Amino acid sequence: MSRAVGILGGMGPVATVDFMGRLVAATPANGDGDHLRLFVDCNPQVLDRNAALAGKGDSPGPDLVAMAQGLERQGADFLVIACNSAHAWADEIIANVAIPLVSMIDATVEAIARDHSGLVRVGLLAADACLQAELYQSPLVAAGLDVLLPDTDGQKTLMALIYGVKAGDTGAEAKARLVLLVDGLVRRGAQIVVVACTEVPMLLAPIDCPVPLVDSTGALVTATLCAATR
Amino acid sequence: MSRAVGILGGMGPVATVDFMGRLVAATPANGDGDHLRLFVDCNPQVLDRNAALAGKGDSPGPDLVAMAQGLERQGADFLVIACNSAHAWADEIIANVAIPLVSMIDATVEAIARDHSGLVRVGLLAADACLQAELYQSPLVAAGLDVLLPDTDGQKTLMALIYGVKAGDTGAEAKARLVLLVDGLVRRGAQIVVVACTEVPMLLAPIDCPVPLVDSTGALVTATLCAATR
Repeated sequence: MSRAVGILGGMGPVATVDFMGRLVAATPANGDGDHLRLFVDCNPQVLDRNAALAGKGDSPGPDLVAMAQGLERQGADFLVIACNSAHAWADEIIANVAIPLVSMIDATVEAIARDHSGLVRVGLLAADACLQAELYQSPLVAAGLDVLLPDTDGQKTLMALIYGVKAGDTGAEAKARLVLLVDGLVRRGAQIVVVACTEVPMLLAPIDCPVPLVDSTGALVTATLCAATR
Repeated sequence: MSRAVGILGGMGPVATVDFMGRLVAATPANGDGDHLRLFVDCNPQVLDRNAALAGKGDSPGPDLVAMAQGLERQGADFLVIACNSAHAWADEIIANVAIPLVSMIDATVEAIARDHSGLVRVGLLAADACLQAELYQSPLVAAGLDVLLPDTDGQKTLMALIYGVKAGDTGAEAKARLVLLVDGLVRRGAQIVVVACTEVPMLLAPIDCPVPLVDSTGALVTATLCAATR
């Protein structure tokens, strides 16, 4: 019997459905019974992570803790968060539940080391909150990698695209703007692009990226399957 | 503030993700906060509905009641089930929770009356358990409609295709076999095809059906949005 997964979701809901869909597709199954038990709290009303870390809004920590505790009560054996920025409150969550959290950040950094050793310059696509909390920069630099970020205008564009996905815009123009942004990172020397935001895969497929792409959602799918079936 | 939805899912998991994805896509939203709060129990280990109603397995009723009660405890204001056959245990579920169930069967029958009045002969694609419990035949006949079912071989094919989807087979050959089955119903006089199984949309798009298609998943999406925001 596999272990039940508790998913803190809704940040945003499209990203949660994307994560669930890829998790189901990646699970080896001959029928329903081989799939994982998933408890999902898809809560789009969690306070804005970017506003909170910019000092312009209250902390989403209490929301996230309440969701985690609810999933634990439901029977989840471990937790995952289908949102990178929300990992800025991971310590607060972990301190208030008895079950472990499988970190999307750890899963992504491990995927880079496992699948792309030797590549040194990493282009990082992440939301403001995720950057402000240095969720990726710290472990990537600790792993000996150089981190390239979009310039100020590029980061503003990225944030507009992320909020666009949350409002349902996954159209061709949005995709083209993101590809331009990625091309800019590659021209500046990025040897690999890390998609460290769960909205971005709705706009960027690996085939649209001229260098290897590591996707945090995909990394979390792999880590979740490992944790559920080990 | 909209009302929170409790989703009894995992029957199968692909169908649950399909329902959630369509619900999110159908929700008018300018950002995360406009989306619905969804509590999901995606439980692929619910006892087999078809085996139970064929007298070859235990009732999934207790599983479904436990899931419903868990979702109620989580804070769901009403329940939906992303599986038609499981509605055979709807009374047992309703009797054991204090929140209402928005029925996929009711939603689908209403969608037929609303969108396709005047069409009389209905081709019904449903799993064995759903047929055995007469979940659709009874209300459709009560509404004055004629119900056409696949013949014995056709129904066997349909069940194989449904279990195929649960095992990850949504390939071109499976789709072609389903289209043949639909064509047979239309040749026999079906003026409308009702997809009364949440796995079937993974194999059959409206464009592949020569007559109007009413999809239970789509009908439940509409009914869920109405119930959550009214």
